[in-house]
Amino acid sequence: MGKDFTVLMARNQAMVEDCLARAFASEPRHADLQEAMEYSLLSGGKRIRPILTLETCRLCGGSILEALPFACGVEMIHTYSLIHDDLPAMDDDKLRRGRPTNHIVYGEAAAILAGDALLTAAFEQLTKAELPAGRIVQAVQCLSQAAGSAGMVGGQALDMAGEGRALDREELELLQSLKTGALITAAAELGCIAAGGTQEQRTQVRAYAQALGRAFQVRDDMLDIISSQEELGKTVGSDRVNEKSTFVTALGLDGCSALVEKLTRQGIEALNGFEDPAFHIWLANLLAQRKK
Amino acid sequence: MGKDFTVLMARNQAMVEDCLARAFASEPRHADLQEAMEYSLLSGGKRIRPILTLETCRLCGGSILEALPFACGVEMIHTYSLIHDDLPAMDDDKLRRGRPTNHIVYGEAAAILAGDALLTAAFEQLTKAELPAGRIVQAVQCLSQAAGSAGMVGGQALDMAGEGRALDREELELLQSLKTGALITAAAELGCIAAGGTQEQRTQVRAYAQALGRAFQVRDDMLDIISSQEELGKTVGSDRVNEKSTFVTALGLDGCSALVEKLTRQGIEALNGFEDPAFHIWLANLLAQRKK
Repeated sequence: MGKDFTVLMARNQAMVEDCLARAFASEPRHADLQEAMEYSLLSGGKRIRPILTLETCRLCGGSILEALPFACGVEMIHTYSLIHDDLPAMDDDKLRRGRPTNHIVYGEAAAILAGDALLTAAFEQLTKAELPAGRIVQAVQCLSQAAGSAGMVGGQALDMAGEGRALDREELELLQSLKTGALITAAAELGCIAAGGTQEQRTQVRAYAQALGRAFQVRDDMLDIISSQEELGKTVGSDRVNEKSTFVTALGLDGCSALVEKLTRQGIEALNGFEDPAFHIWLANLLAQRKK
Repeated sequence: MGKDFTVLMARNQAMVEDCLARAFASEPRHADLQEAMEYSLLSGGKRIRPILTLETCRLCGGSILEALPFACGVEMIHTYSLIHDDLPAMDDDKLRRGRPTNHIVYGEAAAILAGDALLTAAFEQLTKAELPAGRIVQAVQCLSQAAGSAGMVGGQALDMAGEGRALDREELELLQSLKTGALITAAAELGCIAAGGTQEQRTQVRAYAQALGRAFQVRDDMLDIISSQEELGKTVGSDRVNEKSTFVTALGLDGCSALVEKLTRQGIEALNGFEDPAFHIWLANLLAQRKK
């Protein structure tokens, strides 16, 4: 796996945590809205997406700090999507990262509103970058397309509509490329945009992130089967209870393993030509082999 | 009331309808997501907010067409907020503009997702304006602040938290300035931003729209009492059933009438110095006297 970037990862995480913790700190509190937003936003996620934004900015020749508002915007989108996905009308999950889900703590109405507010705040975050206005507009475009009806929300709609019946491989690929892949891809692209990268760089970064995102989701489906409830912090096999189709139901565990390896290799190859892709290579391997 | 702008209003409405109808037309359909979005987006609202954006752009010296993407972005935010406000966990409304609400037709999950997607699409819309990037960034900033936790969503959170107890006048003013006022104000400001207006123009336009928004809400509370169910297309007195505090419970009908008149006068006075505020004066009077 080459060099160990654990320390760099922790430093980036700390930078993101600090930025997210400050985002709503000076805002007037309206009922328990801001508290509900921060409950989920500051619940110790791994911050894969924002770190991908920061390090892709560096990869494309930019400085990490300039990409921080973009990184936090992506994480706000990710957080809102988890809050809404957990709602009773959606996946009806009671646990997330080992803690009660947002609507269990604050009620359904507050959880819907906390999600709405985080989604809105993501776009405000983008405008806080100290970058040329043209890059910020590109970022708004990229993130809104990835997160909206032609991207992440579209994937969630397919997911809800597909419950209770078996999806074939193609349907599953589309669903996951939208639901999970689009935002991971946007996270990397935003880093490239922040750095003022070339169109060629953006294309390479996209290819890397798309492969990474697919591998991530396949691995996630595998972990849902092989992990125990304590390790994962959410109900084991909850996807199976809801009769959801997953890559494991489509390919089996061994087939999934092989696919994750292949995708990881493809993702790494897409970065050929970059001066220093060592972190991205390490991250791809880390995600492919993660235990929880 | 001076000149009658009904024809101009209809022309603006048609322009907005056309733009909204095209927004998702060429997008791949994912389950019934796009259908659910368009069900609410194209349900024949009065389009007050986008028209305010267009005409304020003209008022500040810009050309209406340039502001059209901003106008449609505002209307998408407004529409998403109605879909989410109507949800069972929120106001639990079954009728809106005389038709079944989104979640009654498409189910709760689809309605949540349709709202999320419209909220996201609003920001994509802003980037479609053929304007200098700096103005688009200002628009994203203005709209996200007005629509988020420090604005509209904050107001809805106060509204939900205030149900079942009497709010005093000050609480009610804050709640409504956030829940309704912030987006109406942003609608006008976005017109000024599109036109590249001066800071002074923006301040005047803000003051006009804030007064208009307050008058609008007071009048709305009055209509909730005096209209019949057929006229309004929603359950009469539904705010009363939910034991919500309104301006009528705080001031009585006569007190509300006087307040609407005063606010309308103040709003119109705020536009002193503009070359041709005739439309804005007409609109303020129209809204103050509207029957439904």
